[in-house]
Amino acid sequence: MEKRPIGIFDSGVGGLTVFRAIREQFPHEDIVYFGDTARVPYGPKSQNTVIEYSIQNARFLIQQGAKIIVIACNTAASAALQTLSKILPVPVIGVIEPGAIKALSSTQNGKIGIIGTNGTIQSQAYPSAISKLSSSIQTYSQACPLFVSLAEEGWENHEVSKIVAKEYLQPILEKGIDTLVLGCTHYPILKKTISHVVGKNINLVDSAEAIAEQLAEIIPNTETEGIGKDKFYVSDNEEKFARIAAKILGQNITHLTKVKLGESWYL
Amino acid sequence: MEKRPIGIFDSGVGGLTVFRAIREQFPHEDIVYFGDTARVPYGPKSQNTVIEYSIQNARFLIQQGAKIIVIACNTAASAALQTLSKILPVPVIGVIEPGAIKALSSTQNGKIGIIGTNGTIQSQAYPSAISKLSSSIQTYSQACPLFVSLAEEGWENHEVSKIVAKEYLQPILEKGIDTLVLGCTHYPILKKTISHVVGKNINLVDSAEAIAEQLAEIIPNTETEGIGKDKFYVSDNEEKFARIAAKILGQNITHLTKVKLGESWYL
Repeated sequence: MEKRPIGIFDSGVGGLTVFRAIREQFPHEDIVYFGDTARVPYGPKSQNTVIEYSIQNARFLIQQGAKIIVIACNTAASAALQTLSKILPVPVIGVIEPGAIKALSSTQNGKIGIIGTNGTIQSQAYPSAISKLSSSIQTYSQACPLFVSLAEEGWENHEVSKIVAKEYLQPILEKGIDTLVLGCTHYPILKKTISHVVGKNINLVDSAEAIAEQLAEIIPNTETEGIGKDKFYVSDNEEKFARIAAKILGQNITHLTKVKLGESWYL
Repeated sequence: MEKRPIGIFDSGVGGLTVFRAIREQFPHEDIVYFGDTARVPYGPKSQNTVIEYSIQNARFLIQQGAKIIVIACNTAASAALQTLSKILPVPVIGVIEPGAIKALSSTQNGKIGIIGTNGTIQSQAYPSAISKLSSSIQTYSQACPLFVSLAEEGWENHEVSKIVAKEYLQPILEKGIDTLVLGCTHYPILKKTISHVVGKNINLVDSAEAIAEQLAEIIPNTETEGIGKDKFYVSDNEEKFARIAAKILGQNITHLTKVKLGESWYL
């Protein structure tokens, strides 16, 4: 039987934190990753557009043989998980549900904070996933759109990031949360600053780790021999992607290819 | 003779400051504007990719009948003006040269600061345009990538923007500049904060105004009757574009259409 890869997509480099967690969990599996760096960021874009982009990205991964699609972008998972599950011929999982489960098992006082992009927060995907699991939990959401830019600028430990984090987080901290979901795959990059602002008594839930754990339950770990191969595809800026990937993954990536969408605009 | 519009493109909404200046200068002309909101921002993208995007955008405007192309995005003008001038059948102007001319006529002490996106600053487009006009001018450049996110967040007068502006601008202020080019069409939105940081003795050069003045020299103001019609095209997020456009232009826009690039990724 032909060996088929796990497919992962994200709007850019943020999903590499998910890739890393899955690679650790599945050392023998092949993985194909798509980063839509030509259209990053997804956070400020409309829900219909994010759905359209997600379909294109997932179909591309299926063309590359993917046996399962992992949506490693909270904005895309919030907008497109249901649609993709309906129309694709392979299973699809997103970062939302595993994050919700992990948050639920972390909270003691039943008060969970959620931070993410505008798209993720407006979609209400986390509150809705959490309320399906338990009706007694209270959730408090806050969009933190500047976090992505700050992370991409390398300002994650800068004084400005602390001030921005305080401004964003103060309103949900006042609600007495004991758990905070990092509902954007970029946010683990700012973990130190966020921890500093929220203090030691609040658990941070990293959705990248959560989804790797869920994946381990869904697909049998059949591959036990050899070293899994990685293939990366991006829609722009290979050099920058390779540079950031080396930083996040701790080693240089090979098999990086740029793909194109079209030659001209049409009505 | 058929009336043909002026074509303007930008990576998103920033170029609307250019549209506004041109609309004021040419009340009787038709204008067609394209904002590539599906792929905004251009600043962090590679030069080759920005050239490719600019060709697609300009060709689309020519399909809509444009008699001249205005590159209302500093990153795109820096990367693609030469290429577009060579391959397009109509004249092309970018924001760089008019900004350089205006900066030159503003400086008294021959020291000019330039701020812009990573793409614009790395291209050295402004220093090169200025040194062609005068060899005795000293230029000092600084990339300010967070300014675009802050403007899009509506944080233009926020304390954080002041801190970020101080951090970015301090090194070039220490050089004793008397003129500062706002080398990104988003930056006029932060003008108040930037003015506050640089003080009264430094002239700010707004490239949006500069290019409208240059255009008035290039195309004869032949239209003297009727009210010019506006058409807007975007590649994503019509609602958000319309909202920001109404704010920048002081009135609601009509004739807003979304365009598409392709259905699927290819290698």
